[in-house]
Amino acid sequence: MRERGTHERSVVESILDEGIVCHVGVVDGSAPIVSPMAYARLGTNLYLHGAARNRTLDLLASGSAACVTVTLVDGLVLARAAVHHSMNYRCVMLFGVGATVEDPEEKLAASTALLERMVPGRSTVARAPSVPELRATTVVRFPIDEGSAKVRTGGPKDDPEDLSLPVWAGVIPLELRARPGVAEPDLAVAAPAPTVALGSRPNRSEPLAP
Amino acid sequence: MRERGTHERSVVESILDEGIVCHVGVVDGSAPIVSPMAYARLGTNLYLHGAARNRTLDLLASGSAACVTVTLVDGLVLARAAVHHSMNYRCVMLFGVGATVEDPEEKLAASTALLERMVPGRSTVARAPSVPELRATTVVRFPIDEGSAKVRTGGPKDDPEDLSLPVWAGVIPLELRARPGVAEPDLAVAAPAPTVALGSRPNRSEPLAP
Repeated sequence: MRERGTHERSVVESILDEGIVCHVGVVDGSAPIVSPMAYARLGTNLYLHGAARNRTLDLLASGSAACVTVTLVDGLVLARAAVHHSMNYRCVMLFGVGATVEDPEEKLAASTALLERMVPGRSTVARAPSVPELRATTVVRFPIDEGSAKVRTGGPKDDPEDLSLPVWAGVIPLELRARPGVAEPDLAVAAPAPTVALGSRPNRSEPLAP
Repeated sequence: MRERGTHERSVVESILDEGIVCHVGVVDGSAPIVSPMAYARLGTNLYLHGAARNRTLDLLASGSAACVTVTLVDGLVLARAAVHHSMNYRCVMLFGVGATVEDPEEKLAASTALLERMVPGRSTVARAPSVPELRATTVVRFPIDEGSAKVRTGGPKDDPEDLSLPVWAGVIPLELRARPGVAEPDLAVAAPAPTVALGSRPNRSEPLAP
């Protein structure tokens, strides 16, 4: 099997820890809305942070049922036959109900985790949030409780009769890369751009443990 | 304004044409489900292709209200203050109702567009779908009709009193890159791996036209 689902927590967590954007689905009336949000994992919870006040954040914060999906695209799978083209990917879908974080300490921990996810050590360098800033920030806690991961790895699955066709087949690996940082023009410090953390990037050709 | 929404079709289409995975939200009973799907744009429609038969595809094909979101993450925005950290991104959210494509010619056109989106010219190289293969493939048409784009570009927005802090601030650009192709071990042809198309990659520091 090149595509398989799992409920194994370690697999779910490794995918969550590598992603930087999740897609949050909520239901507004009877219509679904899917919005991208920044997030970080702390233990058995995700902490979601809206770019700005929006409908999804409002619905999430008010306890609507939600689905949080994180997808990492690992490669394009080129088969000899058109119909067998595919993608290698790792995906986590979580189901549950979010809750607004009210406790200032938990809010600060979530805010710190979000910064550290982007750049390790960043939370010790950036000016820490003030009490009013923290109060004005909406952070939603979402449990990593119900859900699953789905992973496709490996090459194409062509039919035996197509294997002799003179067509290139294989995988084109894709990766999210950071380019050199672009500093603000008015920096008060001569320092190099920090190094970002784009995840553990495990060996993607390894199948999941059963 | 560093973050702005738009209903301009050219902006929406350029984002759709650069993405390779969309997140499709549907409502199952009263609960949202968000699944990643491959897609390609042909004119004023998206054509969605499920990795396998799944609940989202079934609901989409049966005409459930859906939200299709494509997000491109362009950079991490590092501010001097923790609270002003952000991401540069381009996102399209479309709302509507999908329909299963029954016409074999439209199905073939959608399948061709999906291949060409991955690798230009691929549909002329790969073995074309047979009539039974085409019949067994589920393709959903989704109109690019109701929705909007949202784009954040540029550097951080620190407060004036933080500008003198000795903290690096700026943007770390992110990009999806293709690594060298990994050929199947049993290729019948000595050919280089094809070049993939990861989108037009416009100058991301340019603000949107008003």
